[in-house]
Amino acid sequence: MRVKLVIEYDGTNYAGWQRQKNGITVQEVLEQAFCKASGERAVIHGAGRTDAGVHAEAQVAHLDTNCTIPANKISYAMNMLLPPDIRVKQSAEAGKDFHARFSAKAKTYRYTYYNDTHASAIYRNTTTHVHGRIDIRAMKIAAEYIRGTHDFACFCASGSDVTDTVRTVYRLAVTSDEPFIHIDVTGSGFLYNMVRIIAGTLIDVGQKKVSPEHVKDVICGRDRTKASATAPARGLTLKEIHYTPFGKDKDIDA
Amino acid sequence: MRVKLVIEYDGTNYAGWQRQKNGITVQEVLEQAFCKASGERAVIHGAGRTDAGVHAEAQVAHLDTNCTIPANKISYAMNMLLPPDIRVKQSAEAGKDFHARFSAKAKTYRYTYYNDTHASAIYRNTTTHVHGRIDIRAMKIAAEYIRGTHDFACFCASGSDVTDTVRTVYRLAVTSDEPFIHIDVTGSGFLYNMVRIIAGTLIDVGQKKVSPEHVKDVICGRDRTKASATAPARGLTLKEIHYTPFGKDKDIDA
Repeated sequence: MRVKLVIEYDGTNYAGWQRQKNGITVQEVLEQAFCKASGERAVIHGAGRTDAGVHAEAQVAHLDTNCTIPANKISYAMNMLLPPDIRVKQSAEAGKDFHARFSAKAKTYRYTYYNDTHASAIYRNTTTHVHGRIDIRAMKIAAEYIRGTHDFACFCASGSDVTDTVRTVYRLAVTSDEPFIHIDVTGSGFLYNMVRIIAGTLIDVGQKKVSPEHVKDVICGRDRTKASATAPARGLTLKEIHYTPFGKDKDIDA
Repeated sequence: MRVKLVIEYDGTNYAGWQRQKNGITVQEVLEQAFCKASGERAVIHGAGRTDAGVHAEAQVAHLDTNCTIPANKISYAMNMLLPPDIRVKQSAEAGKDFHARFSAKAKTYRYTYYNDTHASAIYRNTTTHVHGRIDIRAMKIAAEYIRGTHDFACFCASGSDVTDTVRTVYRLAVTSDEPFIHIDVTGSGFLYNMVRIIAGTLIDVGQKKVSPEHVKDVICGRDRTKASATAPARGLTLKEIHYTPFGKDKDIDA
């Protein structure tokens, strides 16, 4: 059977989602736990590869197995064996045609800044510190320029070998919940580091280092050198994988 | 001069606030940082002693110093030397008669449960997991019985040598913000483990292990053996120390 998993993790102590030689990853820790629980080796396919230090509230993955554990009990069996910074929130049987990555229609990420004189102790691993006065209104204006379908080559980390760099940002909302500033972004897909470059660009606008109109120019100019620095990984959380076209399962309220 | 500090910490990796032989404490780490920054040894007096694993968003402390660092810059100097799970949010000169502990009129704590099928990975250190359906309304009713001035002997950890066990709980609010359940309690002072026993009692009510009326009986009966288990430290955060009588600096909205 094919099993769908919904997974939460604090990415602080991991070298990202995807299995690799240098460092322990979320994927391999999950695969080890599943192997111990079921006695079977299975590849756990994630919907999105998150980078080192990036978190997930609801990463989605799937695996194929012949094990006798009922699908909805796999979460319990795995959580017994997982470290507390990784939890399987849900497990359920999925159709054979379900693919965590290819069936996904959209993804929502949240980037969170902690805006205060000093950094936060309690939220140190899940927020990026930024001090001084932040112009939220200017950030909202810039966000409007980014929203929509554009060639996001200018918002892609250099070295990426993707050729088609057109993506659609369905929703890009900036909200202030002092001392937190949240940037919620939902898109059809994201180029490498795209969300963190959007976050870095919007905070530059908030700090008045660049104007909202500059962001418009970057979007039009297709020049990565004009976009801002990539914001640190720790502020980024994968919030949701959407399997119905975005806007059909919920209102677009950005 | 006397300096007032406002301190945030993630208590996960500390043996509590107060200096002791077994384990590293928040107080000693702060004193070491101040000593390195100023070249002076000073005792840092906290407003409240938090237990191992308990957090603080705004612990208040004071110290006396002859150092040349301006009072409002001491936070910056100390933060350069502190581990990231302890931050001095604010430092300011205080009057000679200000005492972090004895000047305090009230304290506010928050206890947070994470109510979902599985525990949280991201909030594992700041919440206590509880699964199943929780009756928030019953918890609110029980909270009303606890609020007020009572002999809280029944809500005090055994072994405490305090003789006067009468305390006033000014505010005790239970709020649901799914999957979180927050218990906010403000009191004139608290007996040892009192907030955690209140939290343990209220969740027993929410899980229908005991009725709200049972809590009323415990409050009246002065029998500790009838109160519930002490809730784990990790869910507890010291939110605020009040230096004006509670209710005068803000509305009581419980």
